[in-house]
Amino acid sequence: MTSPPSERATLLVSCPDRRGIVAALAQVLYGHGANIFDSDQHTDPVAAQFFQRLHFDLSELQTDRGTLERAISEVAERFGMRSELRYQNRVRRVAIFVSKYDHCLYDLLLRQRSGELSCELPLIVSNHPDLEPVARQFSVRFELVPVSKENKVEAEARQQALLSEQGVELLVLARYMQILSADFVSGFAGKIINIHHSFLPAFSGGKPYHQAYERGVKLIGATAHYASAVLDEGPIIEQDVVRSSHRDSIADLVRKGRDLEKVVLARAVRLHLEDRVLVYGNKTVVFD
Amino acid sequence: MTSPPSERATLLVSCPDRRGIVAALAQVLYGHGANIFDSDQHTDPVAAQFFQRLHFDLSELQTDRGTLERAISEVAERFGMRSELRYQNRVRRVAIFVSKYDHCLYDLLLRQRSGELSCELPLIVSNHPDLEPVARQFSVRFELVPVSKENKVEAEARQQALLSEQGVELLVLARYMQILSADFVSGFAGKIINIHHSFLPAFSGGKPYHQAYERGVKLIGATAHYASAVLDEGPIIEQDVVRSSHRDSIADLVRKGRDLEKVVLARAVRLHLEDRVLVYGNKTVVFD
Amino acid sequence: MTSPPSERATLLVSCPDRRGIVAALAQVLYGHGANIFDSDQHTDPVAAQFFQRLHFDLSELQTDRGTLERAISEVAERFGMRSELRYQNRVRRVAIFVSKYDHCLYDLLLRQRSGELSCELPLIVSNHPDLEPVARQFSVRFELVPVSKENKVEAEARQQALLSEQGVELLVLARYMQILSADFVSGFAGKIINIHHSFLPAFSGGKPYHQAYERGVKLIGATAHYASAVLDEGPIIEQDVVRSSHRDSIADLVRKGRDLEKVVLARAVRLHLEDRVLVYGNKTVVFD
Amino acid sequence: MTSPPSERATLLVSCPDRRGIVAALAQVLYGHGANIFDSDQHTDPVAAQFFQRLHFDLSELQTDRGTLERAISEVAERFGMRSELRYQNRVRRVAIFVSKYDHCLYDLLLRQRSGELSCELPLIVSNHPDLEPVARQFSVRFELVPVSKENKVEAEARQQALLSEQGVELLVLARYMQILSADFVSGFAGKIINIHHSFLPAFSGGKPYHQAYERGVKLIGATAHYASAVLDEGPIIEQDVVRSSHRDSIADLVRKGRDLEKVVLARAVRLHLEDRVLVYGNKTVVFD
Repeated sequence: MTSPPSERATLLVSCPDRRGIVAALAQVLYGHGANIFDSDQHTDPVAAQFFQRLHFDLSELQTDRGTLERAISEVAERFGMRSELRYQNRVRRVAIFVSKYDHCLYDLLLRQRSGELSCELPLIVSNHPDLEPVARQFSVRFELVPVSKENKVEAEARQQALLSEQGVELLVLARYMQILSADFVSGFAGKIINIHHSFLPAFSGGKPYHQAYERGVKLIGATAHYASAVLDEGPIIEQDVVRSSHRDSIADLVRKGRDLEKVVLARAVRLHLEDRVLVYGNKTVVFD
Repeated sequence: MTSPPSERATLLVSCPDRRGIVAALAQVLYGHGANIFDSDQHTDPVAAQFFQRLHFDLSELQTDRGTLERAISEVAERFGMRSELRYQNRVRRVAIFVSKYDHCLYDLLLRQRSGELSCELPLIVSNHPDLEPVARQFSVRFELVPVSKENKVEAEARQQALLSEQGVELLVLARYMQILSADFVSGFAGKIINIHHSFLPAFSGGKPYHQAYERGVKLIGATAHYASAVLDEGPIIEQDVVRSSHRDSIADLVRKGRDLEKVVLARAVRLHLEDRVLVYGNKTVVFD
Repeated sequence: MTSPPSERATLLVSCPDRRGIVAALAQVLYGHGANIFDSDQHTDPVAAQFFQRLHFDLSELQTDRGTLERAISEVAERFGMRSELRYQNRVRRVAIFVSKYDHCLYDLLLRQRSGELSCELPLIVSNHPDLEPVARQFSVRFELVPVSKENKVEAEARQQALLSEQGVELLVLARYMQILSADFVSGFAGKIINIHHSFLPAFSGGKPYHQAYERGVKLIGATAHYASAVLDEGPIIEQDVVRSSHRDSIADLVRKGRDLEKVVLARAVRLHLEDRVLVYGNKTVVFD
Repeated sequence: MTSPPSERATLLVSCPDRRGIVAALAQVLYGHGANIFDSDQHTDPVAAQFFQRLHFDLSELQTDRGTLERAISEVAERFGMRSELRYQNRVRRVAIFVSKYDHCLYDLLLRQRSGELSCELPLIVSNHPDLEPVARQFSVRFELVPVSKENKVEAEARQQALLSEQGVELLVLARYMQILSADFVSGFAGKIINIHHSFLPAFSGGKPYHQAYERGVKLIGATAHYASAVLDEGPIIEQDVVRSSHRDSIADLVRKGRDLEKVVLARAVRLHLEDRVLVYGNKTVVFD
């Protein structure tokens, strides 16, 4: 993989399972001079669905990118594929929604700055002013959009305008404490990643650490998932847990949970940005 | 800890929190010549409850065991304690209930035989004849007690008679696929350990691996808990998880889950047999 | 994946990285009517090596197996590939070497009997008679081959004769406490899996739990690896760890370690039997 | 635990094992009106050493702190104890040494600011100027002390002067890439915590991720330990691991390792600051 990142691309495809798909895709890439670095493929025998991720090098492409794109589209059409081609030098623009907790926000900002998350971060939106100094530290635009029962429609319109104006392609809810409307979510389907501070489906809804404390569980978890119209029920991208015990107060669970939330959310965002996640039904295929 | 196990004992106490408890217990043991090897203590500030486990040596006891017991009872009464004193040479008698799955049964039998579980295993009860050969391999009495909607009352009476006749002090449900009645459970409260093949409270009830598959979780779990009148809601003793992915069919989840179930159940049984678990409300204190 | 297992096959290939490999393999399978279920591929950019595992269905093969094999061989030759094709109905014959510890032996026997390990188990060899009853319980031939400094050469000759006579294709060292000679190992290269009871390369050599205890580590591990001429230095297939603390005596480490050893060894054997492991240099590619 | 933190204290003791220690300590605290919240005790039967941590409330102390301290000293003398009493309102002053990596530094600064680490952070010392802006963001004094083979003695003298001037009681090496002299370390024995980016004792010394990559391990680790005269051989406080695979380049290991390093170092620092760690020989007792 000695070619520069600007010469690499990723193709994500899914379609009803049929024979010949792997060969057709390999052939079209090879035929145009694209060299496959990594290929991962999965067939779900129950859903009869085919999924593949191809990561390849374009530095010795024998045609131009437009020609390659058209050839891929032809294969996609033949097999009834959804396909998504992304050139690695075209990084996504990401917005972060927060409220008052700063741990996930700091974590994402630091990872982006260190190059661990391949994206631009042009926008932070919050319903509270508290984290504006953090945004300023990292020179990211901060927009305060207060949300109340009364102004919810206007607030979401303002948020959507900001996302649209900034050309945002991924929205990360980094412990954003407001529920987005079904309309907002469906207008951005598959492009909103939320972190929930429990091992879903356990302890969905509010105050999961309190629920975990009451139930006396011996592990606490965190779940990163795509937002869907129904709260906490979207497709799960990543989960992890950490051990807890009778010694842990709710404050201890909150503290332990913060580390989990940061890591689980960052992993999910990274998987998405590297085009490793495919959604089908209410589930995900994660090629990691 | 060079004294023989026969000269050791464990004291488990719980009571409303008050000052002076630790000193009083330490004093009564020291005063009688018992030497504390290990002591673990916990105060739940929310429930205002005190818990302690003391493991001590009796080899240089200056009085007899009866005198020590009376002295402990006096302290217990003074502080309104529930207390339980167990001499290590008095191992518990354990029964196992199974249906058709053999993995947890084999696991418990092998651990008991290797000395890892300090108990006697005089009885295996099943509603199916399939696992009788396993019982025979390990020379454990096997009783077939078929259970149906019609004979449930008689079946439980038969089971209770067997437990009573064998002096059973702990009942392990090793993937026993029948629901015990509330009466049966309350008659054996805090002495029935069940293994549920999910990370409770997620996926309680039937077919948890199917539920996990449908939801697309990225970890599957197992939970060992004391049985209570309400199914899958008893106090949790131990839990663990293992990673799963889109590649796992339900059969894969079942296979991965078997390893979890064995280990989680065995840990819980071991913790109970070593008097490391205290129940309060619907939660446990586990001194591990 | 509704075709019967008898109609499936796995192809494992590795070769110097070149463009067109993926397309050529996909094409040859597709061209003969083999339908790819699962394909996983990896390119090591440092070693400039290409690796791929293809799992496919033969139920609609348009030619016969011999023709397909010849076509694959031609591709393999063209790209300088090592390739291995295995029909799923041709399960491997596996021998287990043990000494006195029974936990890994029982574990493998139970997993094989439950169908979790797709193999035949025709032979158990030990340098001690202790585990013969276990072999008998599972109706597996048990051969006692005592080993001493004096008879080592004859003993290994006897072992090799047994393996050869039984057509053994995989040898599992399930806590076998003798060191095999370099000759023995090289005669069975890549076909001997050993379990070492530490997180290699930490605590190689003898008494790893004692070493771990002395060093005061907070985790203990187990490592399954292919045997190589140099003790404990062969390619690692699988590793895992479990938490330990100052409370753990050496006996506790041994007990905790047993669970690790069983699981790690079983996973490695399973990965090998499902043709998911490729060795290169002193490392492995594991397509799991 | 409704008393304010200012009214709490922790007592850590260790001594040769003898009978009556637990009773004597409980008695002295009770007798002065100190109420024990939490007590954890351990006896190492091999080393014949006794260890205890007592966390207690002083809000109803019947004497003054000086009297209590003298009473504890008398018990300590009687049993040949090392003892350390710390009032919770007297937080430690901590210095951080760094080089160029910022992830552990940011992590510690954020945790301290959020109240997760109970300490003051008056000083950051580095041999490079790169991280000065981070120090400034958090308003912590930054001192550049370049280190070379030639000026090592002077540089360490300058570092010691800074630590002394600032009254530093704990020094955290947060990926500080210089080796401290044996003199420096012994002058600060048990008060320097280092993070090593491997699962020690595997991959001690330089470039552990490169070593891990070469060896092809399936897990990578991190170890927080007290610095000792011999590099990477001091008493281990905390370790953890994360799964790796053939897909991970060295850059991937570095990235995954960063998350481990942060969490493992922060846990160790927290355990130390809460007086949960006792060193004996080259090992630790960690009351967590």
